[in-house]
Amino acid sequence: MREPIPPTVEWRSGKVRLIDQRALPGRLTFVECSTVAEVVRAIRTLVVRGAPALGATGGYGVALAASRSRSPSAVHRGTGRLRDARPTAVNLARGVDRVLSAYDVAGTEAALAEAHAIADEDVAVNRALGRHGATLLGAGARVLTHCNAGALACVGYGTALGVVRAAAEAGKAPHVWVDETRPVLQGARLTAWELDRLGIEHTLLADAAAASVMAAGEVDVVVVGADRVAANGDVANKVGTYGLAVLARHHDVPFVVAAPLVTVDLDTPDGTSIAIEERDAAEVTHVAGSRTAPRGTRARNPAFDVTPADLVTAIVTERGIVGPPFADSLAALAP
Amino acid sequence: MREPIPPTVEWRSGKVRLIDQRALPGRLTFVECSTVAEVVRAIRTLVVRGAPALGATGGYGVALAASRSRSPSAVHRGTGRLRDARPTAVNLARGVDRVLSAYDVAGTEAALAEAHAIADEDVAVNRALGRHGATLLGAGARVLTHCNAGALACVGYGTALGVVRAAAEAGKAPHVWVDETRPVLQGARLTAWELDRLGIEHTLLADAAAASVMAAGEVDVVVVGADRVAANGDVANKVGTYGLAVLARHHDVPFVVAAPLVTVDLDTPDGTSIAIEERDAAEVTHVAGSRTAPRGTRARNPAFDVTPADLVTAIVTERGIVGPPFADSLAALAP
Repeated sequence: MREPIPPTVEWRSGKVRLIDQRALPGRLTFVECSTVAEVVRAIRTLVVRGAPALGATGGYGVALAASRSRSPSAVHRGTGRLRDARPTAVNLARGVDRVLSAYDVAGTEAALAEAHAIADEDVAVNRALGRHGATLLGAGARVLTHCNAGALACVGYGTALGVVRAAAEAGKAPHVWVDETRPVLQGARLTAWELDRLGIEHTLLADAAAASVMAAGEVDVVVVGADRVAANGDVANKVGTYGLAVLARHHDVPFVVAAPLVTVDLDTPDGTSIAIEERDAAEVTHVAGSRTAPRGTRARNPAFDVTPADLVTAIVTERGIVGPPFADSLAALAP
Repeated sequence: MREPIPPTVEWRSGKVRLIDQRALPGRLTFVECSTVAEVVRAIRTLVVRGAPALGATGGYGVALAASRSRSPSAVHRGTGRLRDARPTAVNLARGVDRVLSAYDVAGTEAALAEAHAIADEDVAVNRALGRHGATLLGAGARVLTHCNAGALACVGYGTALGVVRAAAEAGKAPHVWVDETRPVLQGARLTAWELDRLGIEHTLLADAAAASVMAAGEVDVVVVGADRVAANGDVANKVGTYGLAVLARHHDVPFVVAAPLVTVDLDTPDGTSIAIEERDAAEVTHVAGSRTAPRGTRARNPAFDVTPADLVTAIVTERGIVGPPFADSLAALAP
């Protein structure tokens, strides 16, 4: 009997409970946050990551602030750092702003209700997105993915892995090539763990091996998530996504982005306006706590990259699949 | 005072002494092999790796067999497994065959003399190759390299890093982007260690970050080594090289292969005839001895890939730099 995947982010007894993604795949444990400062630390240290999960976490963080603070000004002050805890995903700021608005209008209980709404919508949206995306996959489709855009990147179900999951539920028996995704290894640690729990066939790859698997004709489609989609269709996602998009184009493999509309930011005109977070060099000079490079080695460690819209074949949302020109198709979809 | 890099492979007191590359960059230690079986094990477990280093190790392995065995048939029997210890680099089989021929003609002392000749030639060839290659680099050139094609991949000096080194010696102050090169991390562990000892500026990258550094216009040239160059110019090298070549083409960055002529195999018509070694999945599911993927995760782990000649800008050899069409230019160079 396979074990289910619990919610990534959950409100429990007045606290925000997060799966501790740093401990996976070894142990399934949780971090409980009682203060906004603890939520901020959990976000910065990657206890929780993934654009939709950050949106829900931001929302619950505001609910937490509302339940603990004595005045609206304290709530606003306390959530400023939460909104900016990571810069690239638009979802975090949106989740914070949405719950703050509800709080400003109707108080603490409304804030919590709004945070719950974000979490519930996440799963519903991902299921709808998955069903649309699965129509792009044939029987036995060999899907390559990067990083983790699964249940663990959301409240549940997943975006890119939601597409794979919906295809599996439709009996298409997909096979997933999982990029390990250095430096933080979200592919090896999280995506492989999810697919194992779901009973979906998968094979792990060093990131640098993806090109030769494509050259061998063993990839039918690349499906990735997104941290932010700009109005013109440029996509910010985990570093390495852009290189995959170039490789997909070279090998005539479709490159598909699975992005709920909350990840589409029409206020960001294009990729050049997206802040790319530079993380600690130690993530590159060390692996799993062990130093791999000589002491004093400098490293460049951008957490994300930008894939220009012209390398994107399709963007899958909960309202359907759109193609180029994305400036038009995204604008037509947006609420 | 910077410490020098000792010879990767050396004959010492009747044994083959190898730098233990598994222990770098943490400790500089050596493995001494007294039997051919020990040499085979050292090759298979990556104590020593890199095409030119494998050539010299194969040569000394035959010298070791000759010094310990009682009959020519025992020497030939003992060195069969040595010749096949790793399949992709042509140098290993060539080193073994060359020293075996000397032994067959003139006996044990001649075998050792021939092995010494391979080792001495390696350094001389790399210096010549480096001087030619350095002419391709401008002042302050930003060079991206993959894996380790340095002194540690040879007896000394290096091929791709020999080009960088010769540029540094010519006062050009190159900067090197070092791909960490999963799964075995030869970039992080070996290339960064060498460049640190040489005092050459460098910055480490996760392999998946190379694309965005190229997109930012921060790479002037990609320089890599080769495990085997086919007659048509197809290049087998560390997995990930092919992807870099595609990215280099996409960004109009020259893609240069540094390969001594002993790595050029005119008997291999093209890349499809090159055996690509598939290594243990545990190299991908673990990092530095720690498991990173769930138990039971399958992995694909090709050690090498093939870059088609049409993505190669130039091949640098000890006799000069050649360009396409490589079928003609390589044939004209070969001895």
